[in-house]
Amino acid sequence: MKKILFFLLFCAFSGFAQNTDSLQIRKIYDEILTNGECYKTLTYLCKTIGPRLSGSTGAAKAVQYTKKVMEDYGFEKVFLQEVMVPHWVRGAKEEAYIENGKVKTKVPIVALGGSVATPAIGIKAEVIEVKTFEELKALGEAKVKGKIVLFNRPMDPTKINTFEAYAGAVGQRGNGASEAAKYGAVGAIVRSMTTLQDNNPHTGGMRYAPGIPMIPTAAISTNGANLLSKLLKENPKLKFYFKQNCQTLDDAPSHNVVGEIRGTEKPDEIIVVGGHLDSWDLAEGAQDDGSGCVQAIEVLRAMKALGIKPKRTIRAVMYMNEENGLRGGTKYADLAKQNNEKHIAAIESDNGGFTPRGFGMVGTNEQIAKVTVYKNLLAPYGLAEIGRGSGGADIGPLGNLGTLLIGFKPDSQRYFDFHHAQNDKLDAVNERELQLGAASMAALVYLIDKYGL
Amino acid sequence: MKKILFFLLFCAFSGFAQNTDSLQIRKIYDEILTNGECYKTLTYLCKTIGPRLSGSTGAAKAVQYTKKVMEDYGFEKVFLQEVMVPHWVRGAKEEAYIENGKVKTKVPIVALGGSVATPAIGIKAEVIEVKTFEELKALGEAKVKGKIVLFNRPMDPTKINTFEAYAGAVGQRGNGASEAAKYGAVGAIVRSMTTLQDNNPHTGGMRYAPGIPMIPTAAISTNGANLLSKLLKENPKLKFYFKQNCQTLDDAPSHNVVGEIRGTEKPDEIIVVGGHLDSWDLAEGAQDDGSGCVQAIEVLRAMKALGIKPKRTIRAVMYMNEENGLRGGTKYADLAKQNNEKHIAAIESDNGGFTPRGFGMVGTNEQIAKVTVYKNLLAPYGLAEIGRGSGGADIGPLGNLGTLLIGFKPDSQRYFDFHHAQNDKLDAVNERELQLGAASMAALVYLIDKYGL
Repeated sequence: MKKILFFLLFCAFSGFAQNTDSLQIRKIYDEILTNGECYKTLTYLCKTIGPRLSGSTGAAKAVQYTKKVMEDYGFEKVFLQEVMVPHWVRGAKEEAYIENGKVKTKVPIVALGGSVATPAIGIKAEVIEVKTFEELKALGEAKVKGKIVLFNRPMDPTKINTFEAYAGAVGQRGNGASEAAKYGAVGAIVRSMTTLQDNNPHTGGMRYAPGIPMIPTAAISTNGANLLSKLLKENPKLKFYFKQNCQTLDDAPSHNVVGEIRGTEKPDEIIVVGGHLDSWDLAEGAQDDGSGCVQAIEVLRAMKALGIKPKRTIRAVMYMNEENGLRGGTKYADLAKQNNEKHIAAIESDNGGFTPRGFGMVGTNEQIAKVTVYKNLLAPYGLAEIGRGSGGADIGPLGNLGTLLIGFKPDSQRYFDFHHAQNDKLDAVNERELQLGAASMAALVYLIDKYGL
Repeated sequence: MKKILFFLLFCAFSGFAQNTDSLQIRKIYDEILTNGECYKTLTYLCKTIGPRLSGSTGAAKAVQYTKKVMEDYGFEKVFLQEVMVPHWVRGAKEEAYIENGKVKTKVPIVALGGSVATPAIGIKAEVIEVKTFEELKALGEAKVKGKIVLFNRPMDPTKINTFEAYAGAVGQRGNGASEAAKYGAVGAIVRSMTTLQDNNPHTGGMRYAPGIPMIPTAAISTNGANLLSKLLKENPKLKFYFKQNCQTLDDAPSHNVVGEIRGTEKPDEIIVVGGHLDSWDLAEGAQDDGSGCVQAIEVLRAMKALGIKPKRTIRAVMYMNEENGLRGGTKYADLAKQNNEKHIAAIESDNGGFTPRGFGMVGTNEQIAKVTVYKNLLAPYGLAEIGRGSGGADIGPLGNLGTLLIGFKPDSQRYFDFHHAQNDKLDAVNERELQLGAASMAALVYLIDKYGL
């Protein structure tokens, strides 16, 4: 049955239309590869504004800046959606060392977003290393109480898609502290989420489970984790010291930023293309997710530059607070529901501004088949992987409204070299790769707009 | 007919075999992604040895080093093939400036490989800018004589595969000097072969046509070319000065380096995997083509580590002198012919150590069909582009012996950011990307060895 549906769709969509469309798609790529401005916008976002953690002045400046960029491009409607966001601050730089007998060795750590601080004098305790929560449970209170737990399961390097490796390890970061605290641990140190062996600690969000003591938690660089693990094998009684000064302030007002080109035939059907404007505080958020934001703006810029008048309404959305709360994405979907807006598709770019490989989708078989049919048109641009997959965190809440969720899928090999770490800076992004991603999304928006879903 | 052939091949190759093969390919990727040593070898090649232009001490050291690496891995036979190579040296750093009235502005140039020097006092002359040889011809001796020709056609940024953009522009570098000299030019300055707008000049090979005066020629950075072009529009009488100190010495002895695992069933059928060991003199030759060399060695290392005993003989070949003569590739094929060796396939990696996209082939339809049939086995690793394409310069001469030529095809977006320029250093290579390329070639070698051609 599915095959028949696909065949019918394929027949319906052929010949003349294919040819017109392939010419238009070629024009979209030409425009963006020749006159693209997304790298320029990203440069400002990274170099003039910098880090944009929710609630920070950087985030507020980024809201005003991207709003102005879209106004200057003459998008028909540019507006903000107010949203209250968590406001966590890191405070003074963290300190940590391994105390092995009389030898103290400093190691690089960063507090995880949402963590509580240590006491002002820090925490020093013995360390117990685990790779899984099952292992932790088996050790139980007898072996864990009063200690710092080192969660040291690496990202699996054999996964070709590094996001699968991330998914297989990130539970330690998100839930490690509460899991450790269940058995009386006093702190939780998590191996950084990267396949590199280096000295960069990678931060990221964590959540405390209700009713369990909130213990401080930090990420340690992979080299630091390896060293600690090695020394622990020689001396299980060694101690680990860390001090961090972070705190969660009151929720702060912030905004999603939305730019719109109104549809000429079906303005009530909306297609979203977006990324998230907030970043972690350690770097410039160039890959995560300045890239997605500037690509979304570029999609609309290019359509305007090419004189494409969409049938449906196209929106570029810069979501706020993906990293530690998802408040912007939730708010956007709440407002869409409240205003009876019909979002037919939402595309998110939040896997980095690397060379395009395809799109992953979350939706009904029918919705997905209607996009998969464009495979031949997109294949010349390296977009070979089009099918069921994952959408994106910010657009996720729109799924409840029946919107087809589409995740832009770039090459994933380098992403976790920078992700949430101090080296996620402009120079981590290649201009052509960034442009190709924007063009890929613009091509898909063009097709979905033209043929509907 | 072709379709029927393909169908029959596909039927022959299915079920149990597919499953065994997919498990073995998975093991190859796991081995290289977990225990891979190619990045370590590349690190030595780049950081301890450095530039490896034909005839240089760096090239000689690289020959000895890669020979030793393969001997230490215990490959059954490791040997050198002597070959005489051109020996061009750059001499003291080049100088260049634009003299616009009383203002002198320095611009970055590098002599092209094979160029003659300027007179010791340099050359200063008016400049005529062209984008094509046709334009040059139309201007003729009247407009060109006594001047320096600026060849300023950029690489076309709208080509998705940057190698196509390169092919569309590189004629200016290879033949520009002789074309200009035909009309009496005294020098030729060529826009660097890169899509970046920056201050890095990119060198590369050039050839003098017989019977035409040999005038000095250099590459100018793209920013330099843009500036010169802009100033020329304001003042066509401005002058350009350049001085370079290069020379061609006598041919020097050098070597191809070959490592071999002998086949257990058909040792006389040879499969080659290779890259070229020589590089330009400006940097470490990390992407071009240290990557290809260390990947070739890694293919054999991984087969040995996994206990794969190939039916056919597998060779890792490090060719000498791809950049300015192709003497190594030519010599290798000459010896193959002389020794009546049967090379069934040769794979070359000389497009950088980036994320794999596929393989391009040069051969008969039947040969190509026999490899295309492996598409489904390779697709899970991102190798979507498998079909007719281009092989590689070094393996090219084997084509005359009926060998199927296979070019490893990595993502091409970043290659010309570094190509032949001073930033082609180790940090231009990502370890996982490099490993994935090696694993892709190892998988293909495994399949071709098992099923033949």
